[in-house]
Amino acid sequence: MRVHNFSAGPAVLPEEVLKEAQEELLSYQGIGLSVLEMSHRSAEFKEIMEDARNRTLKLMGLGDDYTTLFLQGGASLQFYMIPLNFCPEDKVVNMIDTGAWSSKAIKEIKLLNKKLHIAASSEDKNFTYIPKEWKLSENPAYLHITTNNTIRGTEWKTDPDIPDNIPLIADMSSNFLSKPLDFSKYDLIYGGAQKNIGPAGATFVIIKKSLLEKQNPGMSTMMDYNTHIKKDSAFNTPPCFAIYIIGKVLKWIEDNGGLEGMKKRNEEKADYIYNILDESDFYQGTVVPEDRSMMNIPFRLPTEELEKKFIAEAADNGMLTLKGHRSVGGCRASLYNSLPMQAAQDLAEFMQKFEKKNK
Amino acid sequence: MRVHNFSAGPAVLPEEVLKEAQEELLSYQGIGLSVLEMSHRSAEFKEIMEDARNRTLKLMGLGDDYTTLFLQGGASLQFYMIPLNFCPEDKVVNMIDTGAWSSKAIKEIKLLNKKLHIAASSEDKNFTYIPKEWKLSENPAYLHITTNNTIRGTEWKTDPDIPDNIPLIADMSSNFLSKPLDFSKYDLIYGGAQKNIGPAGATFVIIKKSLLEKQNPGMSTMMDYNTHIKKDSAFNTPPCFAIYIIGKVLKWIEDNGGLEGMKKRNEEKADYIYNILDESDFYQGTVVPEDRSMMNIPFRLPTEELEKKFIAEAADNGMLTLKGHRSVGGCRASLYNSLPMQAAQDLAEFMQKFEKKNK
Repeated sequence: MRVHNFSAGPAVLPEEVLKEAQEELLSYQGIGLSVLEMSHRSAEFKEIMEDARNRTLKLMGLGDDYTTLFLQGGASLQFYMIPLNFCPEDKVVNMIDTGAWSSKAIKEIKLLNKKLHIAASSEDKNFTYIPKEWKLSENPAYLHITTNNTIRGTEWKTDPDIPDNIPLIADMSSNFLSKPLDFSKYDLIYGGAQKNIGPAGATFVIIKKSLLEKQNPGMSTMMDYNTHIKKDSAFNTPPCFAIYIIGKVLKWIEDNGGLEGMKKRNEEKADYIYNILDESDFYQGTVVPEDRSMMNIPFRLPTEELEKKFIAEAADNGMLTLKGHRSVGGCRASLYNSLPMQAAQDLAEFMQKFEKKNK
Repeated sequence: MRVHNFSAGPAVLPEEVLKEAQEELLSYQGIGLSVLEMSHRSAEFKEIMEDARNRTLKLMGLGDDYTTLFLQGGASLQFYMIPLNFCPEDKVVNMIDTGAWSSKAIKEIKLLNKKLHIAASSEDKNFTYIPKEWKLSENPAYLHITTNNTIRGTEWKTDPDIPDNIPLIADMSSNFLSKPLDFSKYDLIYGGAQKNIGPAGATFVIIKKSLLEKQNPGMSTMMDYNTHIKKDSAFNTPPCFAIYIIGKVLKWIEDNGGLEGMKKRNEEKADYIYNILDESDFYQGTVVPEDRSMMNIPFRLPTEELEKKFIAEAADNGMLTLKGHRSVGGCRASLYNSLPMQAAQDLAEFMQKFEKKNK
C-alpha cells in the first residue's frame, strides 16, 4: 500500500516512474547493469543525460539560446555561485525578499562582500504576500526572485517586468514546471529537483548563454558555469541516477498534458484544500488569497494541540508529512506535480471530518 | 543476465544490494513510500544517514574525534573547498603530484592564488610510479596526496610519514575502504562514492574535527565544513538515495570480512590479471610493479588495433568497459570491492585465450 505523501521535498514521485525504475534496477534496458553502476561516459548514460536536458528546454518552450545543466549542491550552492559569477565589483545585486529562501540567498551575497540592494520585501507582514512593487538600485548586476516560497506558501502569479538589459534570475525550486510561464524572460532559473521533477541529488540550472558574457573572470573550475556548459553537464561525475529519474518524470509530465496539463491538475488539487480554508472558520490559511501557492498550502487550526492531533490522525489515515516547517509551525500540505488527485481529495475529506469531530 | 562491469567509475555494485534496493523501491520497509521520495527530515531518513555515517567511521577504526559527511560535487569540488578552508594567506599548500587527479587539484590551488609547493612528482616518468621521497616547504598548510591514481593505475602502499603538526589530506576516491589502513594518520579524507562504496551523486568527506581549528574565517555557508558538520551532513537536502545505497554497500563490506576481507578479495582479483601481465609478453603493464594499484589495472597490447579488437571481443563476451582512459589510451580493468571474483577469473581466462589466438 502506498501512502499519500504531502512532503515539501524530497517529495512524491509518479508511481509509474518508480515502477519503471524498479523493473530496470538490475539491468537497464536489458544491458546487464544498473544505471546506479553505469559509467557517465557510456553511450547509454549520455543518451539519458541529453534526453533529460532536451526535454527540460522543450517543456519550457526554450530554444538553443538556453542550456540545461544538472549540477549538485542544491539551491544553497547556487546562492553562492550566482553572485560569485554574475556580480562584478562595481555592480549591485538586487533581491526581492519573500522569506526564508531569499533570506538565505541574501546572506551569501553579504558573505561574499558583494553590494546588495533589497528591491522589495514582504517582511513587514511576515512574508504572507508577494511584493507588487519594487525599486531597482543604480547599476544593478541582476534582479533575483524566489518564485514560490515553500515555507510561507506564497507564489508569484506574474513575472516581474524589468528592463531587458537587466538579467532576471529566479529560484524556482518549489514550483518549477508546475504551470506554463514565459521562461524566456529569465536569464537563469535554478532549483533543487526534489520537489517537482525528481528525487534529491540534482540541481537544475537553466541558463541563457548570453548571460555568460557578464561573468566575472578567474572563476574556479567547479564554480564556473562555463565549465559545466562546455562539458554538456558532465565535467565531473554527475548524479546519474537522479538525472535518470528526472528524465522519466519529465516524460510523465509530457504524457500528462505538459505544463498546461500540470497547471490544470495542480489548480484542481489546490482548490480542494483552499475551498476548505475559505469555507471553514476552523482552518485558517496564512497567505493573502491573491498570492497563494498552488504547491505549498500552510494552514492553522484553532490550537497547537489540535494541530498535533490533526497531523497524527492524518498519518494514521495514510496521509503523511502534513507538519508545517519548524520555523513557522502549523500544518502544510505540499501538492507538487506528482501528487495524485486522489491524495488531495482524500485530504479534503479528512479535513472536513476532522473539523466536524473537533469543532 | 548481468554482465561483468570493469568500469573505472561509476562502477559495479553488489548484486545483493541492488536486489534489496529493487524490492524496497516503491515502499521502504513497508512504510508506503520510496527512499527516492522521502523527506530528508523524516525519522527514517535520519536513521539511514546516521547508519551510513557511523558504519564508515567504524570500518575505518576511527572514533568521535572524526566525523563523516556525505556532500555533493565530487572530488572536483573538494579540490576547491580544501585550500579555500585550510590554506591561510601566509602558508603554503604542499602537493604530491601523481598525475591527472592531483594535477586537477593543483590547478584549483593556483586559481585561488594560494601559495603552492610541489613536494614531489612522478611526472618525470609519465606518472608510472609513486614518489618515495618528498620535500616539504617552509610553513606548510598541509600535505595532499592522491592514494590511488585511477587513470595511471598507481597506488600508495604506505602512508607518507610527516610531522604530526602538519595536516595530511588525501583524495581516496578510487581506493577508499579497499584495504585496512591507519586512517588516523589523516586529517581529511575525501572522494567520490561511485567507485568503491556506492553510486554516483555523493562525496564522502571524513574529517578530523581538530582540523577545523585551522580553518580560514569568513567562509561562505556551503563552502564551510562546519556548516555541514553542525547539521549532521544535512544542512541542505542531501543526496538521499545515494546515501541509502552507500549504507547498504558498507553493510555488505562488513558482512564480507570488513577491510581485511576486502583486501584479501581485491588482492586475489588483481593477482589474476597481474599474473598474466607478468607471464605474457603480449600484454604489458604500464606501472612499476611495487606501485601497482589493486583497483585499476592499465595494460597495453602490441598494437592499438589489437587493443580495439580486445575491447570489442571482451564486450561480446559480457566483459564491459575495458577501454583505458581517453588521456592515456590502451586497456584498463577496474576491480573495485564489489566486482565479483568470477569477473576477474573470466577476464583472466579471456585474456589468455585472446593472446593465443592473436599472437
